[in-house]
Amino acid sequence: MRAVILAAGEGQRLRKDIKREKPLINLLGLSLIERNILSLRECGIEDFVIITGCYKKEIEDYLGDGSKYKVHITYLHNPDWKLGNGVSAAAFRKEYRKNEKFILTMADHIFNVEALKSFVHAAASISHDNVLLAADKRLTKVWDVEESTKIESEGNTALKLGKTLKDYDAVDCGVFLGTEVLLNALEEAISKENYNLTDGVNILASQGRVKLHFIKEDWIDVDDLAGYHQAEKILLKSLLPAKDGLISRIINRKLSLPITKMLSKTSITPNQVTLVSLFVALASAISFVLHQPFLGGILAQLSSVLDGVDGEIARLKFQKSNYGGLFDAILDRYADFLIVIGMAWLWFSEGESLTVFFVSAAALTGLPMSMLIKEKYHTVTGKVYIPWHYDGLLKYLPTNRDGRLFIIMLGGILNLVPATLILLAVTTHLQAWGRLINLRKMI
Amino acid sequence: MRAVILAAGEGQRLRKDIKREKPLINLLGLSLIERNILSLRECGIEDFVIITGCYKKEIEDYLGDGSKYKVHITYLHNPDWKLGNGVSAAAFRKEYRKNEKFILTMADHIFNVEALKSFVHAAASISHDNVLLAADKRLTKVWDVEESTKIESEGNTALKLGKTLKDYDAVDCGVFLGTEVLLNALEEAISKENYNLTDGVNILASQGRVKLHFIKEDWIDVDDLAGYHQAEKILLKSLLPAKDGLISRIINRKLSLPITKMLSKTSITPNQVTLVSLFVALASAISFVLHQPFLGGILAQLSSVLDGVDGEIARLKFQKSNYGGLFDAILDRYADFLIVIGMAWLWFSEGESLTVFFVSAAALTGLPMSMLIKEKYHTVTGKVYIPWHYDGLLKYLPTNRDGRLFIIMLGGILNLVPATLILLAVTTHLQAWGRLINLRKMI
Repeated sequence: MRAVILAAGEGQRLRKDIKREKPLINLLGLSLIERNILSLRECGIEDFVIITGCYKKEIEDYLGDGSKYKVHITYLHNPDWKLGNGVSAAAFRKEYRKNEKFILTMADHIFNVEALKSFVHAAASISHDNVLLAADKRLTKVWDVEESTKIESEGNTALKLGKTLKDYDAVDCGVFLGTEVLLNALEEAISKENYNLTDGVNILASQGRVKLHFIKEDWIDVDDLAGYHQAEKILLKSLLPAKDGLISRIINRKLSLPITKMLSKTSITPNQVTLVSLFVALASAISFVLHQPFLGGILAQLSSVLDGVDGEIARLKFQKSNYGGLFDAILDRYADFLIVIGMAWLWFSEGESLTVFFVSAAALTGLPMSMLIKEKYHTVTGKVYIPWHYDGLLKYLPTNRDGRLFIIMLGGILNLVPATLILLAVTTHLQAWGRLINLRKMI
Repeated sequence: MRAVILAAGEGQRLRKDIKREKPLINLLGLSLIERNILSLRECGIEDFVIITGCYKKEIEDYLGDGSKYKVHITYLHNPDWKLGNGVSAAAFRKEYRKNEKFILTMADHIFNVEALKSFVHAAASISHDNVLLAADKRLTKVWDVEESTKIESEGNTALKLGKTLKDYDAVDCGVFLGTEVLLNALEEAISKENYNLTDGVNILASQGRVKLHFIKEDWIDVDDLAGYHQAEKILLKSLLPAKDGLISRIINRKLSLPITKMLSKTSITPNQVTLVSLFVALASAISFVLHQPFLGGILAQLSSVLDGVDGEIARLKFQKSNYGGLFDAILDRYADFLIVIGMAWLWFSEGESLTVFFVSAAALTGLPMSMLIKEKYHTVTGKVYIPWHYDGLLKYLPTNRDGRLFIIMLGGILNLVPATLILLAVTTHLQAWGRLINLRKMI
């Protein structure tokens, strides 16, 4: 399936505050139109037709043929873009292939990728004489309802659309599954000098041909500076994983998201952040060796925070990779090892003894156990290990990485290095053997 | 698909040496007929019809309804079993379902499971008016050709079968894909007082209906004591993995197979062997702590040998499980840790120093790295990590478990514990970082 992106307008309202061609305005490291392309690529779409108008040359120069995004881009220019976005959408007729279904969206709308995925999934079952429109019924959650195109609907069918509609129960999110009937309707509207996309869509709505897909994730039409900042918030919020450790949720993410926001504007890659996180762990280890447990603890926690940033940047800028996942996981183990070796050395230098030796060895060997069991479980069963499902009471042990490093921070700040090492040794191995016993009956 | 197993005969020749009903004779921990059932279960067959004769009651009592093997067994008794095995095979008519294709095999034939898998796979494409017969063209490899049923073939079709055939180019392996035409042919032969399976098959061969599937793996018709011992050899050989570490191949397997042979006759489970292997590693660690490096080294190598036995028993007795794979992998890590902690303690007690501390920590943290990277690679890419494919020159490092423990044995025997720890520390981390660099371009 191809996607048509309308990028013809001037975007006057936002231009007052940000002096840049609107589709090319940078939002957390990617221009608005780049983000749309990469979001749709995540949904499996690799062929794009971009309708330009006001900023023809700038957009073409910026995006090129799409190869740098691993997609294919064709451009169509609409010289009459000032008339209205219906004329721009109708320009796609020139490229339209018989019986083709296409995604139609706007360069300046931003979606949580999951919203687009569910829309593209739903689009597959739409017949050739209907169109599908993404709509939002959660009116209190819609940004700037006043400026939105409203919809009066009945079930999953739109009855009427319009900016000034009084009786409405949903809002148009600006992404369509188009078929030939949409192009026909646009041409009919244009022939009557009605130049907006909504005019064409209304002709189909009056025939009961506009089906609605209600989305449940965040989206926004970026129209002005306030909308731009709201779009940043929406995107940053979308980076939070569905399941996250307790410390991650209540501490780390609150710090990692602002760092991610800052770094997103630079060309720093996720793998570079992963490396920096390792160096911070090394600095933590050295601090412990130099008998600076307070600093060591703080740096350990900082390393833990940065451990979230690499993944956030990767998701935000569509830079996720298999290698990145592996590199992060292995360097996390090295970071853990370095910090615990530093702590062990601190204790060891205060009085060498058998106890220090064995506790340190136990703490060090306990560190990789959680990952070893989870990964092996995955490879033998083909399923992801879900701690809150399999761990029973063990799930309350602070043995996730965020929990472990938080305990190390506390141990450093409170100058309780030996106790921290004992706690790490006990909890990590307790969890490992607990899991071995639990899994016996479960796999 | 159902399987019919002929278990009606008396088995006089083997009975001279082993006083047990032939199908129930124990071969490396499983009776001959049990092994056939479990081998076929590995090929996806869960429904069995067993034709009894001489030992009706004994076989039924022994196997029951099959639930202990997670299959379903039905019995048919052939009171005229003395007439010949064609009568026993024809007895299946009573149970035969219209248009059914079935596997027909003999209780006293033993196959490498891969041979059965390839046969069952090939059987799927046989039409209802033909039969398929497993045959072996590697005449020099066939056990006791003289006693075998010979085949004269042309391409994939048998022209004639018989024990006394002069012009033959293959041997009947004793597993068929039967269709209704086989039962018809057997009945025709019996009506002419020809009571052997070969008589019926020959009628079909004369019509060009006997297709041949040439097998390339080991099999044997267990007929006498020499054949019984040959069957043991074949099964033990089948336990060797396709890819094995160098030390495993030239040392460990030579010791583990005899241990497996011995233990197969007991009820010791693979997981119990895994635990014993861990305890031997603990004994090795204690030996090092007690300044007995020679003994520590030998015990480490013994633990490595036992690490092969659990898998061998599991494969030999069809006791492989997801849990077993996970349990073994995690306990191996614990065994590694224990032994290296023991060695580190030995060195540490000879002179506590910063060097000992850091080398020990480096060795200890290097141990899980190989597994961590391999498992993570598997979970992120969905593919198994193949060291000889990805490791480049790193593959020559003795960082597989068999290599590591062999080095520990040498280090113990030669009383070179510090050098061994340094070598472990360097090679394990060198491999880990080498892999991280190599994989960067490969995934």
